[in-house]
Amino acid sequence: MTCDFFQQATLGVQGLHPYQPGKPIEELKREYGIKNVVKLASNENPLGLSQSVLEAVQADLINLTRYPDGNGFTLKKALVQKHGVNMDMITLGNGSNDILELIARVFVTLTHSVIFSEHAFAVYPIVTQAIGAKAIVTPAKDWGHDLTAMQAAIRDDTRLIFIANPNNPTGTWVNKTRLKNFLDAVPEYVIVVVDEAYFEYASENRDYPNSLTWLADYPNLIITRTFSKAYGLAGLRVGYSISHPTIANLLNRIRQPFNVNNLALTAATVALEDSEHLKKSIALNRAGMEQMMNAFNQKGLPYIPSLGNFISVNVGEGAKVYELLLRQGIITRPIGGIYGMPQYLRVSIGLPSENDKFLQALWKVMNFE
Amino acid sequence: MTCDFFQQATLGVQGLHPYQPGKPIEELKREYGIKNVVKLASNENPLGLSQSVLEAVQADLINLTRYPDGNGFTLKKALVQKHGVNMDMITLGNGSNDILELIARVFVTLTHSVIFSEHAFAVYPIVTQAIGAKAIVTPAKDWGHDLTAMQAAIRDDTRLIFIANPNNPTGTWVNKTRLKNFLDAVPEYVIVVVDEAYFEYASENRDYPNSLTWLADYPNLIITRTFSKAYGLAGLRVGYSISHPTIANLLNRIRQPFNVNNLALTAATVALEDSEHLKKSIALNRAGMEQMMNAFNQKGLPYIPSLGNFISVNVGEGAKVYELLLRQGIITRPIGGIYGMPQYLRVSIGLPSENDKFLQALWKVMNFE
Repeated sequence: MTCDFFQQATLGVQGLHPYQPGKPIEELKREYGIKNVVKLASNENPLGLSQSVLEAVQADLINLTRYPDGNGFTLKKALVQKHGVNMDMITLGNGSNDILELIARVFVTLTHSVIFSEHAFAVYPIVTQAIGAKAIVTPAKDWGHDLTAMQAAIRDDTRLIFIANPNNPTGTWVNKTRLKNFLDAVPEYVIVVVDEAYFEYASENRDYPNSLTWLADYPNLIITRTFSKAYGLAGLRVGYSISHPTIANLLNRIRQPFNVNNLALTAATVALEDSEHLKKSIALNRAGMEQMMNAFNQKGLPYIPSLGNFISVNVGEGAKVYELLLRQGIITRPIGGIYGMPQYLRVSIGLPSENDKFLQALWKVMNFE
Repeated sequence: MTCDFFQQATLGVQGLHPYQPGKPIEELKREYGIKNVVKLASNENPLGLSQSVLEAVQADLINLTRYPDGNGFTLKKALVQKHGVNMDMITLGNGSNDILELIARVFVTLTHSVIFSEHAFAVYPIVTQAIGAKAIVTPAKDWGHDLTAMQAAIRDDTRLIFIANPNNPTGTWVNKTRLKNFLDAVPEYVIVVVDEAYFEYASENRDYPNSLTWLADYPNLIITRTFSKAYGLAGLRVGYSISHPTIANLLNRIRQPFNVNNLALTAATVALEDSEHLKKSIALNRAGMEQMMNAFNQKGLPYIPSLGNFISVNVGEGAKVYELLLRQGIITRPIGGIYGMPQYLRVSIGLPSENDKFLQALWKVMNFE
């Protein structure tokens, strides 16, 4: 018996190219036999877990045999206190990736279109293609989202717009005034997702919007956040959205009942209260960003100013320099391919010593020494 | 601005009723002010984690800040060694729930039908309804799957059949001969998912199929397994499927890149090697099952013989007895509603002392004393 299962898959899935993760440290060790690896490829928090989170997680290991609380009551309660929103506005996800996918699956079908920007986060085209919906990609402006173009691209069949603020991998952002004007202009039948995965870093900037305050005015607005970046919990997988309760209700209907594991629920609850670790993480990022920009300026390497915990720099041939850096034990992220930036490398801000190792290796492979 | 977002959701999601998890222990404590709670509601392993898993997870906490390996290389390698399958046949999921959903999303659209049995695991109707596909529910026979009826129900638009073996919540199972005959009869364009969440308990029975050996003959067969039951890792969320490589390729395209967290990958890899803990867990379950059946027999309470780590017993009014047991600090699972068994309670096999507490409480609330 032979059967062409590929042809039996939905058209969306047949055309799908999966997300390419940053190379894991263990994989580089395995493939290249390198022992000391610096990974600046996935925008993780180089400080690691705070002591309070570590202790809470350790105390919770005994409960691993039990299913998680499918309602995430304790974490939601902490989010309610932190953000002053109602509990019925929150949806918890297995990372914010999960939330982005749930939103598309609730509102978008084959006959609809989804708008996002050139160079925007790779998960937007993936969740759109998985459904088989039409992706409308608007050209970037100065590497960032062109909201005028995005507004002009809206069609009758458009159901969803993704805005990454700041955007990964460019680090570009949309300020308060421009985003509010955009929300005013978008018709009410179009859901606008503002993906704030890097919120904690970006909100240091005074022009960065406090979008939570707009939820009452724009019921079609969904804000997504994550614990994977500034809160340092990428390995545990937890993110969330805040939205109109009707939207949260719909997302929660389709959400897998145990999509967030119980250590993630515990760790996120404690991390949310540990403002000291967050402050330290943000300060470290600010200093590391300065370190990177100064170094690039000295060598005359063009880069894109970033509000995230990463920076994209023009190294000429991204894929080649990426490979050469791997051999030096440094993992960065080439962003040709789906991101359409073949000249650039995206580099996460690490510890000062890691940034330094990366910079030294970069000069070496680019013959800047 | 007001907008009816509910009407904007896909028809499938509009009609969706989310999965109702077993009541978490913390919730019962919160709501009833009860301190000593026995939870026999979610078919968890009452022995808890093995020492080796606990140690491995503790040692891995330091890596929580890093994204998981999106390919799950180490766990897949362990599964390859355990099962003698090729790595490209494996798909990892955030619990096997994740896998069941991925399968439906890859092969089923609005215009297709999905077959499963009356009283079968609740996730089958949920993933079918989420897509808006037609659910064909075949009547059960002696509480179990009627494979003759399921075969007869296949239509031209059928793309997927779910078989829970053993089934949750009835504990009923399909033996080797019957399942093989069924696979022979199913047309090749229909995917058959054999959900073996309780495999480790069930495979003690000599008539229980070793379905992995059939994969070469039936490329439309997908076997799903989980670490949530006998391996005791429900809180961490990890399951997997083994299938034809083309099917695994398709599932992996639509799978979220970091759907399995890194502690789950570590814990599952170590748990797979700890055959002692598994043996103890299975032996404990066998003894507990005897304890339950003997007690039910003594009181003349009808029950359904089960190959899982749970048993469904006829208590007359399931919802009422469930409520009365809650007040005694015992959480069981009422299975009216979506399962259509209002007279029954499903009870997980716990530690001997937990089983005893449950039985004493049951006699009390049923006035059997």
